[in-house]
Amino acid sequence: MRAVRFRVPGGPETLCVEELADPVPEAGEVLIDIAAAGLNRADALQRRGRYNLPPGAGDIFGMEVSGRIAGLGPGVTGFRTGDDVVALLASGGYASLVAVPAGQLLPVPSGVGIIDAAGIPEVAATLVSNVVMTGSFQEGATVLIHGATGGIGTFGIQLVKAMGGRVAVTASTPEKLEAARALGADILINYTTEDFADVVDGLGGADIILDTVAGPYLDRNLQALAPFGRIVSIGMQGGAEGPLDFSKLMKKKASIHGTLLRDRPAWQKAEIMTRTREIVWPLIETGAIRITTDTIFPLSDVASAHAYFDSGNHVGKIILDCSL
Amino acid sequence: MRAVRFRVPGGPETLCVEELADPVPEAGEVLIDIAAAGLNRADALQRRGRYNLPPGAGDIFGMEVSGRIAGLGPGVTGFRTGDDVVALLASGGYASLVAVPAGQLLPVPSGVGIIDAAGIPEVAATLVSNVVMTGSFQEGATVLIHGATGGIGTFGIQLVKAMGGRVAVTASTPEKLEAARALGADILINYTTEDFADVVDGLGGADIILDTVAGPYLDRNLQALAPFGRIVSIGMQGGAEGPLDFSKLMKKKASIHGTLLRDRPAWQKAEIMTRTREIVWPLIETGAIRITTDTIFPLSDVASAHAYFDSGNHVGKIILDCSL
Repeated sequence: MRAVRFRVPGGPETLCVEELADPVPEAGEVLIDIAAAGLNRADALQRRGRYNLPPGAGDIFGMEVSGRIAGLGPGVTGFRTGDDVVALLASGGYASLVAVPAGQLLPVPSGVGIIDAAGIPEVAATLVSNVVMTGSFQEGATVLIHGATGGIGTFGIQLVKAMGGRVAVTASTPEKLEAARALGADILINYTTEDFADVVDGLGGADIILDTVAGPYLDRNLQALAPFGRIVSIGMQGGAEGPLDFSKLMKKKASIHGTLLRDRPAWQKAEIMTRTREIVWPLIETGAIRITTDTIFPLSDVASAHAYFDSGNHVGKIILDCSL
Repeated sequence: MRAVRFRVPGGPETLCVEELADPVPEAGEVLIDIAAAGLNRADALQRRGRYNLPPGAGDIFGMEVSGRIAGLGPGVTGFRTGDDVVALLASGGYASLVAVPAGQLLPVPSGVGIIDAAGIPEVAATLVSNVVMTGSFQEGATVLIHGATGGIGTFGIQLVKAMGGRVAVTASTPEKLEAARALGADILINYTTEDFADVVDGLGGADIILDTVAGPYLDRNLQALAPFGRIVSIGMQGGAEGPLDFSKLMKKKASIHGTLLRDRPAWQKAEIMTRTREIVWPLIETGAIRITTDTIFPLSDVASAHAYFDSGNHVGKIILDCSL
């Protein structure tokens, strides 16, 4: 099969498509003939050598795919060869074939094309596990999402609105904020000209902050938080370390959660996928959430896909067509 | 009535017993003829001018009392004049009388004297709200309690053991650790000679850390935490600020919670008291938890009680007899 690895950590040009042995599904695993793979920030970090892969993950890039079931390992029930599915992976998505624990598969939502569907599992599971599960989302809650127009932002705005919440987003340009407004965001903050903490605090505070910046935003995230609010940190784009003022944390009776989806055990991923199907799939199938694909690149041109991702100019997901 | 306030922030000698007008119970409140009041660390901080009282709290010292109901405000049901009760207060405990929302009252547990009972509400409600509710205690969990021999420590060791957990405690002397061992603590750490984080980490980590030190302990608390663990910070004895390393938080999928009991709204305190009665009262009444009173001082000698509290030499609660 074809698969993408890198020679050395570096820029997009370090990625190379290689011929590797086909994977074989073990007990409880499903073999997927991959149609497409979604790009994620972790892929770009991994390419630069700045991402610690979870134990057991292989060195083939890619955390999410769509495709058709090509074979079942021993003991798998509930799926059949030929089913169209999406899957959350520990690794191995930028390829022709991948073997994945059955609990990490869901059917392709009806109404979504097989290529676009590749961009759903990672954002949907990330939002459900962090906003709904860890963040204890309740109807009426205000959710602040840092980054309006990436995969998480475009999907998250629609999901929170569909669940009855209020959404605040940050972005760097009026164009990105306009895209967020069109998706339903209520509070639009240009972080190059406004202090997001002042804005959100002044509007009653956020019950949940989905944070991808970490260290440098910690103190302002605390300021932006409503009483009893939760900061859920899933990325460290600004740096790992920041000063925590416990007096602010205690006064707000707030909490800070650090989570990662990728290195969770398979049983937890399966639980998250079950909740994701319950909560998100009906919203996609009724059109309440629109899948926002920015650009589709052929797998053979994975370097261009990464270069475009690095530019930060996309709105929604970047997808690799693994048949090309 | 008699009541204790201070003239200026300072040492124990600044406390003075004054004659003040009797309180009158408002709607939903109960008037208590106070038998005794428990001392708490917040009282010592308040005396030094280093505690921000919650909005609406008066300047009479004291967060918990026992006594007999002397009158009912409009709309109170479930209590009668003459009932022996304990109560959690926003303020006003070092006195002869206090009016308190009915939801913050519980009956004196059977088998406990009315004077000793004054030391129960604050520690019991603190442990239930932080270890059971915020900390999501489950049978088999390991709980690290910083401070083995104060009110929280002596009660907390017994409560966690009675609920089926494992307890690790820190203290500064072999004598204090021996007292903790006698109460049931499993892991005894002398923090003057051992690094608690290395010890607890080496024994599998703590699922819940009940933290009263905050800033300077943050990084080591994170080290001591088991995967998916929760740090619940209820005091800042070491200082408010410390550096948070999000990579550690995310790797462990851990969380940090800051809480205060005293400034919660009355409805939340009522909810906590209900859970406290369900969980703790049966354990006291069957003898699984022994009330640990160190010394009883007369209210007229409140200065000596505070001086003794400041010494840190007590094991268990210091109580004021408000009839003396």
